[in-house]
Amino acid sequence: MKLSIERAVLLKALAQAQSVVERRNTIPILANVLIEAEGAQVSFRATDLDIEVVDRAPAMVERAGSTTVSAVMLHEICRKLPDGALVNLAEDAAAGRLTITAGRSTFSLATLPKEDFPVMATSEYSSNFSAPAPVLRRLFDKAKFAISTEETRYYLNGVYMHVSQGETGKVLRCVATDGHRLARIDAPLPEGADAMPGVIVPRKTVGELRKLLDDDDATIAVSVSETKVRFATPAITLTSKVIDGTFPDYTRVIPTGNTRRLEVDASEFAKAVDRVATVSSERSRAVKLSLDEDRLILSVNAPDSGAAEEELAVAYGDERLEIGFNAKYLLEIASQVDRENAVFLFNSSADPTLMREGNDLSAVYVVMPMRV
Amino acid sequence: MKLSIERAVLLKALAQAQSVVERRNTIPILANVLIEAEGAQVSFRATDLDIEVVDRAPAMVERAGSTTVSAVMLHEICRKLPDGALVNLAEDAAAGRLTITAGRSTFSLATLPKEDFPVMATSEYSSNFSAPAPVLRRLFDKAKFAISTEETRYYLNGVYMHVSQGETGKVLRCVATDGHRLARIDAPLPEGADAMPGVIVPRKTVGELRKLLDDDDATIAVSVSETKVRFATPAITLTSKVIDGTFPDYTRVIPTGNTRRLEVDASEFAKAVDRVATVSSERSRAVKLSLDEDRLILSVNAPDSGAAEEELAVAYGDERLEIGFNAKYLLEIASQVDRENAVFLFNSSADPTLMREGNDLSAVYVVMPMRV
Repeated sequence: MKLSIERAVLLKALAQAQSVVERRNTIPILANVLIEAEGAQVSFRATDLDIEVVDRAPAMVERAGSTTVSAVMLHEICRKLPDGALVNLAEDAAAGRLTITAGRSTFSLATLPKEDFPVMATSEYSSNFSAPAPVLRRLFDKAKFAISTEETRYYLNGVYMHVSQGETGKVLRCVATDGHRLARIDAPLPEGADAMPGVIVPRKTVGELRKLLDDDDATIAVSVSETKVRFATPAITLTSKVIDGTFPDYTRVIPTGNTRRLEVDASEFAKAVDRVATVSSERSRAVKLSLDEDRLILSVNAPDSGAAEEELAVAYGDERLEIGFNAKYLLEIASQVDRENAVFLFNSSADPTLMREGNDLSAVYVVMPMRV
Repeated sequence: MKLSIERAVLLKALAQAQSVVERRNTIPILANVLIEAEGAQVSFRATDLDIEVVDRAPAMVERAGSTTVSAVMLHEICRKLPDGALVNLAEDAAAGRLTITAGRSTFSLATLPKEDFPVMATSEYSSNFSAPAPVLRRLFDKAKFAISTEETRYYLNGVYMHVSQGETGKVLRCVATDGHRLARIDAPLPEGADAMPGVIVPRKTVGELRKLLDDDDATIAVSVSETKVRFATPAITLTSKVIDGTFPDYTRVIPTGNTRRLEVDASEFAKAVDRVATVSSERSRAVKLSLDEDRLILSVNAPDSGAAEEELAVAYGDERLEIGFNAKYLLEIASQVDRENAVFLFNSSADPTLMREGNDLSAVYVVMPMRV
């Protein structure tokens, strides 16, 4: 293998590959990236055995071939090379080395045989559709904060992407929950997604996927099977195993009969929650909401350290209500609201509370109260 | 105590106080800041028993008095209050609470008796002088990277500030070393500093002092005794115990007979060192410098992972030389050079190497070689 490639192009292609590679792993080849050069293209493939990413970039390929080297080292070298440099990669198979030259710098990295690299088996995907990057970005971005980190409830360690019935027809839906809060985000169902099996996309995949979705103009090709999900742009293909488990019936958790409606400026609300939570002890970050006619009082009482109270002008017309929440959960939910006021719908101080952005029903959040 | 103060003024005054407070300490009062209000001024005093900082700020004092509350909480509350807010502090001594109000926010923090707050004993200072902030900043900034972190060699855990004989007369000198590298920085001797005893200023004090020195126009009043050092501006007084030990005779370490002179662009040199060090293993980050007529080759050979080499055009007229250094030490030393080329003076590959900025003798660095 022998090729030359622009430093900026190489750096971009390696960025995602090196991020999939686990920093600590006991199998040496998993620290490596598989470089494959052919025609006018080079591809970089990295995997942690659960996720595989392939990044393709244009290159001047003088001699086709493939090899594997440390993903982190190759990325670091590329990052440190001067802007605008032309980078040459040449494999010396006999010596087991890949030589990287740029300007007056020469690097030689140890290679591992490409045959040892675990390429993920190709799957039959039962469903293929495409969606604009901003649509998928919204679905995952607004859901991911609620992903559980409890390893024992492994089936909650991801975002449940599936087809469901929305307010006005079928939707592509992402749901995440950790038992304390839940996010349910809908988007219009893309053509061809009807028969998609519901899949739980693991937390790490959601993080890696995020980088594919940054480009507002990109269209993402999505393929789903019972065991795998694939997201692809012309340059990058991200394939991931899905979590082998059953996502719980979340619909039972979403209250439908909550009638006590509070409307509040989401940003003002979040700042006030953050302020009063300052005096709370680290363990129980409980904030009490006391609601009365167009008035919300947020308060915290931490006997050891102190107390805090703040009043907000809100829209509320129902009877008096006192309800407590974990400050962190309130903050995270309030920060999902990007356009309108936050609308909270309460039932009693012991029942789950629903939150949404204005009257938009395509993003709904549920948060469990705590006793205060 | 009752007073009101602008949020921005309060935030600035608390910033340094809360930074001196140790996050983890077993004596509750040490987490607190002592607030003392009198006349048109309020002061905030914090200590970790080794360092004491007092920050003074103008305030509208309605009722003089003093109390102590959690430094971190008060700072956090102040930070989270909206810009431009007027903050009211009122002590309820009977209830053991300090009430903080601003806009529609009310906080009440638990107080501890001011009598329990350990105020640092005032000292007799044997030497008092003043120096412009930029002069002291340079002395400490350029020396501190070489402070040792080895706790067993406690007498190296700081910067040795003392009076010495420079090239052209007496100087105020800061020296730090960890046995592998050394920095020696000189400034013209300020008036009144002649009789100053040499003191080892602890690492944490050097860090806290840095914040006092940010203002280019400030003049710092320095007071030194055998056991304490004090740095003061009109608003802030930082008092610190000095390290009770003897700084070793560093003069013997600084080579005087090194004649092989290498001159190199410091920034180009640092970037090249950083690049070639990428392939080195974490443990032994050894970089080899191979010098020949106006040519420097930097190389790293790490059998497990690979090798790297880079050539730099330099000014060097002596005979061939090969010498190895820890990459981290070379990088740190090269990053001290801010104006001119780095000038290295070598003797042999086993002897300490001297580095300075151009022909400026007021900042001199020594680095020990390692075998490569």
